[in-house]
Amino acid sequence: MRIGIIGAGALGLYYGALLQRAGHEVRFLLRRDYEAITRGGLTVTSPEGDFHLAVVKGFRHPDPIGPVDLVLVGLKTFANDRLAELVAPLVGPQTAILTLQNGLGSEELLAAAFGPQRVLGGVAFLCANRGEPGTVHHLAQGRIRLGEFGGGLSPRAEQLAETFRQTGISCQAVADLKKARWEKLVWNIPFNGLCALTGLATDRLLCHAPTREQIRALMEEVIAAGNAQTLSSPIGEDFAEQMLTVTAGMGAYRPSMMIDRLEKRPMELGTIYEIPLQRAAQRGVSMPRVALLHALLALQAAD
Amino acid sequence: MRIGIIGAGALGLYYGALLQRAGHEVRFLLRRDYEAITRGGLTVTSPEGDFHLAVVKGFRHPDPIGPVDLVLVGLKTFANDRLAELVAPLVGPQTAILTLQNGLGSEELLAAAFGPQRVLGGVAFLCANRGEPGTVHHLAQGRIRLGEFGGGLSPRAEQLAETFRQTGISCQAVADLKKARWEKLVWNIPFNGLCALTGLATDRLLCHAPTREQIRALMEEVIAAGNAQTLSSPIGEDFAEQMLTVTAGMGAYRPSMMIDRLEKRPMELGTIYEIPLQRAAQRGVSMPRVALLHALLALQAAD
Repeated sequence: MRIGIIGAGALGLYYGALLQRAGHEVRFLLRRDYEAITRGGLTVTSPEGDFHLAVVKGFRHPDPIGPVDLVLVGLKTFANDRLAELVAPLVGPQTAILTLQNGLGSEELLAAAFGPQRVLGGVAFLCANRGEPGTVHHLAQGRIRLGEFGGGLSPRAEQLAETFRQTGISCQAVADLKKARWEKLVWNIPFNGLCALTGLATDRLLCHAPTREQIRALMEEVIAAGNAQTLSSPIGEDFAEQMLTVTAGMGAYRPSMMIDRLEKRPMELGTIYEIPLQRAAQRGVSMPRVALLHALLALQAAD
Repeated sequence: MRIGIIGAGALGLYYGALLQRAGHEVRFLLRRDYEAITRGGLTVTSPEGDFHLAVVKGFRHPDPIGPVDLVLVGLKTFANDRLAELVAPLVGPQTAILTLQNGLGSEELLAAAFGPQRVLGGVAFLCANRGEPGTVHHLAQGRIRLGEFGGGLSPRAEQLAETFRQTGISCQAVADLKKARWEKLVWNIPFNGLCALTGLATDRLLCHAPTREQIRALMEEVIAAGNAQTLSSPIGEDFAEQMLTVTAGMGAYRPSMMIDRLEKRPMELGTIYEIPLQRAAQRGVSMPRVALLHALLALQAAD
């Protein structure tokens, strides 16, 4: 399969490298890492074993990438105003587009630009970051849940999940992508924001009892908003507790938004906070703590 | 009248100085400013005219102050575990105790220690801070609303208000002290906490539209909780808007909790957040944004 990677941050580089190692022809749109990767290849460090790809097809612009079978989108969503223009040169008659971006709203942008039938989305549970140019550090996890933007289980989604599994990671096709996205938000909304706001990793937040209680309350607000979106089945009442338990096992984890903030990049406030707040309000659900957290992050970003 | 001042921060020094200038015998319990004030007196700078009191009765310990007619309490409430022991030596058979401390719960401590009939409380709208030892800077305002802990308008409260008015400040006796305290919290809860958390003065918060909306929402939570406390009449719906307008006129105001935080003192989280949250919960009212703001402040304080 010919695969184009749009958005070569840690997520795009890591999954792209796995797909190339598994035999696919992968073309990366690169910016910061262009020189290093086209000259010296791409190195992945991982607790599951380091590996190096000596020859990697890197491009500075999307036009010469040309049509591919699959576009894998890992672009930071604060750059979503350029999403359609970056993806367009890769789209041919048979191209499928899979976005693994954070939060809500990216599938809708792709569907509006290229037609809903092309679009799949997924949530990635990946702990990785970029090292020096040409290197990506895989720290833990990597599991993906993906599904059709239009809903339902499709042979295409099943095939794509199998493609990912053949690279060595866990991947599941789901019939209800919307539910998978809201479930991911149950984690992202409290932890991305609170870690970015305070500069403290997840363990420091969880060991402070009042903050832990507010994390649970934030999760419950997101669950209530998600369950108002006509999911195939509601997110369970014990989901918040599960997420707290999982997070306690992650140690001093620094979510992507905290790293974005520390590295002075924009934060993904639109897709992780603003669009979820809008979707909740459209269903008459208030998320008061989420709204306050968003305002504090937006204030910090404006400062 | 013989008056004892317990808690000689900016508030205690300023009102104590005004009372002494008006002819009362004022005795100050001092800590940081003891040497400077007993040696060189007390200087007040003020847009209404600077003045200097050459001879000031300062004490390092409360015992030698002895019984007074009025104890004026300006202690920071994070020191309330020492409140009763500091006040006790000043209490004789006829002593009244007026606390102008922030938030909720100080009258109850005084009532438990000295009997409810002795206790009055008040809210002070004062912008002042301490300068070098022996100097207090009055920046703006100074108005007081005071009333009986037991409720109702008393001749004693009216007389005390008149005593303060004779010092040159605006002072009103109110029948519903509880309502006055909750009205003050409508301002204190959003602005003290958000300014302390972000390090930004009031004007910076108000000019950021999402934060301004959250300030209004925080105020509305406090109004709803206050109105569940069986006040003599409810706090009006337009009170939040009034407070926003008043605050816009205050310019780059730095609330006391922000200054406490900047100067590495504890913050008054108990009386401004924890007790109000408890009182709201006792009446079945949730203040979700207030609870999140409190947790973030408590986390910052623990850091």
